[in-house]
Amino acid sequence: MGLLGCGTVGGGVLHLLRANAAYLEARVGAPFEVVRVLVRDPEKERVKELERSRLTTNPDDVLGDPSIDVIVEVMGGVDPARDYLGRAIASGKQIVTANKMLLALHGAELLDRARSRGVDVAFEGAVGGGIPVIRVLRDALAGDTIASLSGIINGTSNYILTRMQSDGLSFEDALKEAQQKGFAEADPTLDVDGGDAAHKLVVLSMLAFGARLDGVSVLTEGIRGVEPVDHAFAERFGFVVKQLAIAKERGDELELRVHPALVAKDAPLANISGVLNAISVEGRALGPCLLSGRGAGDLPTAVSVVADLVDVAIAKKGGTAGQSTRAIRLAERKLSPTAEVEARYYFRFTVFDRPGVLARITGALGERGVSIEQMVQQGRGSADVPVDVVILTHESKEAAVQAALATIAKSDYVAKPPRMIRVH
Amino acid sequence: MGLLGCGTVGGGVLHLLRANAAYLEARVGAPFEVVRVLVRDPEKERVKELERSRLTTNPDDVLGDPSIDVIVEVMGGVDPARDYLGRAIASGKQIVTANKMLLALHGAELLDRARSRGVDVAFEGAVGGGIPVIRVLRDALAGDTIASLSGIINGTSNYILTRMQSDGLSFEDALKEAQQKGFAEADPTLDVDGGDAAHKLVVLSMLAFGARLDGVSVLTEGIRGVEPVDHAFAERFGFVVKQLAIAKERGDELELRVHPALVAKDAPLANISGVLNAISVEGRALGPCLLSGRGAGDLPTAVSVVADLVDVAIAKKGGTAGQSTRAIRLAERKLSPTAEVEARYYFRFTVFDRPGVLARITGALGERGVSIEQMVQQGRGSADVPVDVVILTHESKEAAVQAALATIAKSDYVAKPPRMIRVH
Ligand SMILES: NC(=O)c1ccc[n+]([C@@H]2O[C@H](COP(=O)([O-])OP(=O)(O)OC[C@H]3O[C@@H](n4cnc5c(N)ncnc54)[C@H](OP(=O)(O)O)[C@@H]3O)[C@@H](O)[C@H]2O)c1
Ligand SMILES: NC(=O)c1ccc[n+]([C@@H]2O[C@H](COP(=O)([O-])OP(=O)(O)OC[C@H]3O[C@@H](n4cnc5c(N)ncnc54)[C@H](OP(=O)(O)O)[C@@H]3O)[C@@H](O)[C@H]2O)c1
Repeated sequence: MGLLGCGTVGGGVLHLLRANAAYLEARVGAPFEVVRVLVRDPEKERVKELERSRLTTNPDDVLGDPSIDVIVEVMGGVDPARDYLGRAIASGKQIVTANKMLLALHGAELLDRARSRGVDVAFEGAVGGGIPVIRVLRDALAGDTIASLSGIINGTSNYILTRMQSDGLSFEDALKEAQQKGFAEADPTLDVDGGDAAHKLVVLSMLAFGARLDGVSVLTEGIRGVEPVDHAFAERFGFVVKQLAIAKERGDELELRVHPALVAKDAPLANISGVLNAISVEGRALGPCLLSGRGAGDLPTAVSVVADLVDVAIAKKGGTAGQSTRAIRLAERKLSPTAEVEARYYFRFTVFDRPGVLARITGALGERGVSIEQMVQQGRGSADVPVDVVILTHESKEAAVQAALATIAKSDYVAKPPRMIRVH
Repeated sequence: MGLLGCGTVGGGVLHLLRANAAYLEARVGAPFEVVRVLVRDPEKERVKELERSRLTTNPDDVLGDPSIDVIVEVMGGVDPARDYLGRAIASGKQIVTANKMLLALHGAELLDRARSRGVDVAFEGAVGGGIPVIRVLRDALAGDTIASLSGIINGTSNYILTRMQSDGLSFEDALKEAQQKGFAEADPTLDVDGGDAAHKLVVLSMLAFGARLDGVSVLTEGIRGVEPVDHAFAERFGFVVKQLAIAKERGDELELRVHPALVAKDAPLANISGVLNAISVEGRALGPCLLSGRGAGDLPTAVSVVADLVDVAIAKKGGTAGQSTRAIRLAERKLSPTAEVEARYYFRFTVFDRPGVLARITGALGERGVSIEQMVQQGRGSADVPVDVVILTHESKEAAVQAALATIAKSDYVAKPPRMIRVH
């Protein structure tokens, strides 16, 4: 095999291959030999399991080596990974990748190529780290159809929200702590703004619904806008705030969205804390099924990569390479417009406490047909000192909600932009 | 394919095969044709998807039909299922079974035969209904080793305990309700006395630890002895009472046990309610991973059976039949004696409230080195009116606990046998 990248995940893979070498050899019928390892910096320190003579900075050493029949891509990013995998597939190599970004943007394309070339593309590591959700969707639910799925699939966001909720930290302090503990990157954008979860949601949805979704744009909202006070109000209503990724079938269309959500305290996803991830799948025959575990980290992710390696190696040896890619059939599916989302909504309006303000808020909502289930005003403000008014709605249409919020946002009694969180 | 049995699960399988026929045919490359269906009573009403002309009461019609290359065994019980599957394997047929009892008693034997005959034996439906725990242990964790697993794998017991805990029902009332709702059999013995969970635990442990465990005797205690007052005390200490199946490696030995356990309220298994099942696996590299969902029922179980069918049909077609059984390597493993279990313990002593009773209880425990963490006496009894004294111990050895309990049980101040529940 050839390894593209030898960072966090690549190092974990080398470690597991070494630690379980005897067992893996017995299982596959041949040892895994790491022939070449592509990196950028040949001088960097690496895991002790790496034989440094295998290192190269020239991709052709890996991609052009005919003795390599499996490529493990753990370098990340779209370019040049896309090109490298395209070349590897063209030369009939089996592919294992953990690259959710690449799969979200070009997964269907890669699978098409792999299918016509008769090779496998396995990607358990791309979503949920060590949680085997990919193979559950691909294999275990072969006899069922999926109605919906929802998950906590970004550990960084979940860690931050958990610390805010349980310990009252601010977003900034929780983020800083996550960075210190190595749970968040120096640039946390992809994690906290929802992009990473959106990539993973696209990958999951591709399998769950058999949909071609390369590069679709998913409703994506991050967690920066969630304030400690929102956690407190959520708690008061019997919820916790979680960053969710949600996909469901709506007739022929698919609804995909990533955003903070109020989750009922006793719902399974509400109890997934810290860096843990969880994916809840609703099968039409199966009913609900929840998978949870470590969503990232060198070893958990490597467990998934090595499981894939075993699969594709066995397929290669047995002469059935390409079967797993043939099993993934993708058809065009439309995404339903955000305006059609239907949910209950949580609003927090920070308003100056003037006479008639509540009437104006409820009026603006009522005009659009957004009906209120609960309303709480926390303390008393004044004409100059703003106060939080929090509203929980009955099931409403996103279009109506957005229109009402736009009206309210423009009003003179509003001290800052309204906060909206969908209820799951 | 040939179906042995057409009851709850068999009916679900016929339904799913019909409902998803087009998709399954595309995936496997050929339709699933249900050639013969073995039952006892040819007159009984069956699911509408069954073509009655396929029914037979003669096993030879199924086992001896050379056009049948997959046998789905959903009849249950050890005899004659064991014989039928042995014959099917001998004639090179692929096997799918949901029969945990058979697998617990003769699983390694069946796998041996299948391995040497080059056929697959798939059994996702045998444990956890629709929860894909078998393939997770078999495939997804191929690159990891399992340190321990624990689960709620009997929905009937969990339903009863949940109703007792949440709604204060007695065991008898909760059982009656479960029977009325179809969650418990007329004869609930296998479920409430732990036998069913023990079978499933053996099947899980066979895969998780690569162990030959045919017919081993597992420490098995049912839930009949758990009283409402135990739920109340558990709650007071921050626990809930759950019926758990636990397996762990202790050096070279395996510790397997099924019994009620106190589970910390915020532990993932504590929140698995009603008929839901859950299995928590602790991988050495993966860390903890939890799978939960519907542990029984016609359709959830059928989802697992059909997924297995797809696997074995594809393997047959691709010429790789037997590969999955070859991947399961089993070695002899010793079970560690019950006496060596180490845990914290919950005791409830119902005693006559005579002077010096507490000193005698604590003395009996102390003599054996069982040290007390908390003690609660509920109300006041008298020399004739018994009162409950509840004790939570520090980590202790089972042997010492049993010895101390035996001493206390024989004492004159004890009104009824002590109740012991292990803490998870
Ligand atoms: N970390 C996780 O927990 C996790 C979990 C699930 C999935 N993933 C995915 O797994 C992949 C790898 O993640 P990671 O955390 O292991 O990343 P990482 O630690 O940054 O490692 C990336 C590796 O790829 C090499 N690399 C990157 N670009 C290259 C290029 N253009 N040419 C040659 N080598 C290049 C780097 O070389 P140098 O070492 O020389 O810089 C490094 O060895 C990503 O797709 C990520 O999304 C990660
Ligand atoms: N039910 C569940 O939710 C569930 C979940 C997981 C696993 N399982 C396992 O799946 C298996 C089937 O369970 P089930 O609930 O479907 O059982 P079931 O409803 O009792 O059905 C058993 C079927 O097998 C037939 N049968 C039994 N013994 C036979 C014999 N000696 N000869 C011919 N036919 C025979 C019965 O025929 P008649 O119809 O003529 O009586 C019936 O059709 C069991 O191993 C069980 O442990 C069940």
